[in-house]
Amino acid sequence: MTFNKVLDNVNIYEAGKPIELVVREYGIGENDIIKLASNENPYGTCQTVVDAIARKACSSYVYPDDSMYELKEALASKFGVADKNVIIGAGSDQVIEFCVHGKCDANSKVLMAKTTFAMYEIYSKQTGATILKTPSDEHNLDEFREIYKKEGADIIFLCVPNNPLGECLDAAEVYKFLDEVDKDTLVILDGAYQEYAKYKDGAKEIVPSEVIAKYPNVIYLGTFSKAYALGGMRVGYGIASQEIITTLHKLRPPFNITTLSLEGAIEALKHEKYVEMCISKNFDEMKRYEEYATNKGFKYIPSYTNFITMYLDGYVSKEIAQKLLEKGVIVRDMTGYAFNAIRITIGTNEQNTKVFKVLDTILEK
Amino acid sequence: MTFNKVLDNVNIYEAGKPIELVVREYGIGENDIIKLASNENPYGTCQTVVDAIARKACSSYVYPDDSMYELKEALASKFGVADKNVIIGAGSDQVIEFCVHGKCDANSKVLMAKTTFAMYEIYSKQTGATILKTPSDEHNLDEFREIYKKEGADIIFLCVPNNPLGECLDAAEVYKFLDEVDKDTLVILDGAYQEYAKYKDGAKEIVPSEVIAKYPNVIYLGTFSKAYALGGMRVGYGIASQEIITTLHKLRPPFNITTLSLEGAIEALKHEKYVEMCISKNFDEMKRYEEYATNKGFKYIPSYTNFITMYLDGYVSKEIAQKLLEKGVIVRDMTGYAFNAIRITIGTNEQNTKVFKVLDTILEK
Repeated sequence: MTFNKVLDNVNIYEAGKPIELVVREYGIGENDIIKLASNENPYGTCQTVVDAIARKACSSYVYPDDSMYELKEALASKFGVADKNVIIGAGSDQVIEFCVHGKCDANSKVLMAKTTFAMYEIYSKQTGATILKTPSDEHNLDEFREIYKKEGADIIFLCVPNNPLGECLDAAEVYKFLDEVDKDTLVILDGAYQEYAKYKDGAKEIVPSEVIAKYPNVIYLGTFSKAYALGGMRVGYGIASQEIITTLHKLRPPFNITTLSLEGAIEALKHEKYVEMCISKNFDEMKRYEEYATNKGFKYIPSYTNFITMYLDGYVSKEIAQKLLEKGVIVRDMTGYAFNAIRITIGTNEQNTKVFKVLDTILEK
Repeated sequence: MTFNKVLDNVNIYEAGKPIELVVREYGIGENDIIKLASNENPYGTCQTVVDAIARKACSSYVYPDDSMYELKEALASKFGVADKNVIIGAGSDQVIEFCVHGKCDANSKVLMAKTTFAMYEIYSKQTGATILKTPSDEHNLDEFREIYKKEGADIIFLCVPNNPLGECLDAAEVYKFLDEVDKDTLVILDGAYQEYAKYKDGAKEIVPSEVIAKYPNVIYLGTFSKAYALGGMRVGYGIASQEIITTLHKLRPPFNITTLSLEGAIEALKHEKYVEMCISKNFDEMKRYEEYATNKGFKYIPSYTNFITMYLDGYVSKEIAQKLLEKGVIVRDMTGYAFNAIRITIGTNEQNTKVFKVLDTILEK
């Protein structure tokens, strides 16, 4: 059968290995496995949110309120925007999909950093658009400027902070760049890890209300998957001008998040203190990774997120990741990005202690 | 800002009104509202499934197993196919999206019945494809043949049974039609309500394993949203040749159903007796609607689903639907489909008794 020919060029996203698979393939008990490959919040969902979701389980047969009125109101209030400036997606991932499909076709160009969130490229290729990447792995706005000036772009992705590397542009640099971009270019500011970045350094904070007031061509993306500890519930959002949001709604399927996800997200917004606690612990624990790397003589990328990318000079990262896996520690090998490095989600104190212990035994050999 | 020009032609799906909205707009207590507008299973989610979902709520922070190994195995076993013949979607809705986006572009043609599931047209228009519709509202395969012969089609949708009308083609008619279709045309057999249809009349039963063995160009769609009482959890599936499934996976976003949805769907497949009970009661209750309509002199479409479409000759359906709404009974007005009719989900015995009582008072005036 012939399919849409743009698909010839599309790769499939490789998700972090799930615990279930490691249980099946390596016969390790579920409780002996530490998954630090997908940047979930290792402190778990806030208990009050868990309880709210569990109580709502009896409504699993009922479709959610498709207007998502209450969640939009809560987000609008949190960010100081109107609810008509908000769209909800099944993860911010789905809002990326709406943006790319809403803006691009086979004649379009999409500009992004060389090493950034893989779904930008996958969704773009689904439309047949041409992908433009900066020479540097990390975000370098001068390189963005140069390519943009020469080639133009229909969409520019800025991942602030960047996944999977962890670096983060200053907000002032971002705003300056936005001033220079044509108003017909859609700029996507992916703030999936913004809560972490702004906690570590106020200069990284992107303020959605200011952005959309000044730039009608910019959309800010946020998610409940990371700091809000609801990765498994698939809820994210976009904040932008009414014009953009109204158009993206044409691509939003009805009931695109579950009834329980809606409940969980609304409840999670009532417990910001829990989120702050998780972020605070995250950076305490990250220091241990930095010290560990320094002691071993490994370079790492200073990170504004809940993960750290560590180079493994003198070793082969793919082999180390595999050996960790066999001992029940799931991390992300970066060979696919042409990095001899592993990306590790910052776990709990206990998890990280185990990671260091297991890594020690592997590196000794 | 300019967007993809195909969107100029795209409408937004109008979901059934949620209970939350009726509470807000009409000040009716939540427990006094009966929602019979979205064809949810009124008997609710099986208690064992509710319990499994509630127990899993503490894992809301963990992404689901993206391979969906266990659910695919369970579906493959139920339908007598291999797991490589199965793809999971956020509702069968999302599998429709994969099919349309995977097959169509602005040069494509999509053939469907005049009055059928609204998302077929919406997803198709997102690709810029041309929509071809039969003259008759209900599925008439001779009309499909005539248009297909004259115009060709990249995709043909057959909704068996049909939503929102409720009629259903015989499986033998469908198979005969499939024999005549070119192997490069993707035929989508939407079986969202198949469990109901085959219970009422064995001649309606589509057997996915037989279909995919004989027709490499056909995909069968099923859902957990109706008979399996998990509408709010957004889980559906497609069953087709490995070639089709592999291609559609290029369009499947990672983690496209939630961790709790995966748990719920796996558990629901273990409780087929509950599903049968719901379906059996559905048709007992449907008889009451048929009798009610007959007594009032209203025509209705004999239905193979969990809803009934009733014409309201002598009244204006939009007005009746509005009056029902104001009394806390949410149904679907069919004016948008150019029918002076309402579509009512068959509720529980108690709900239906209330519907008849409220309808009586409205129709008297």
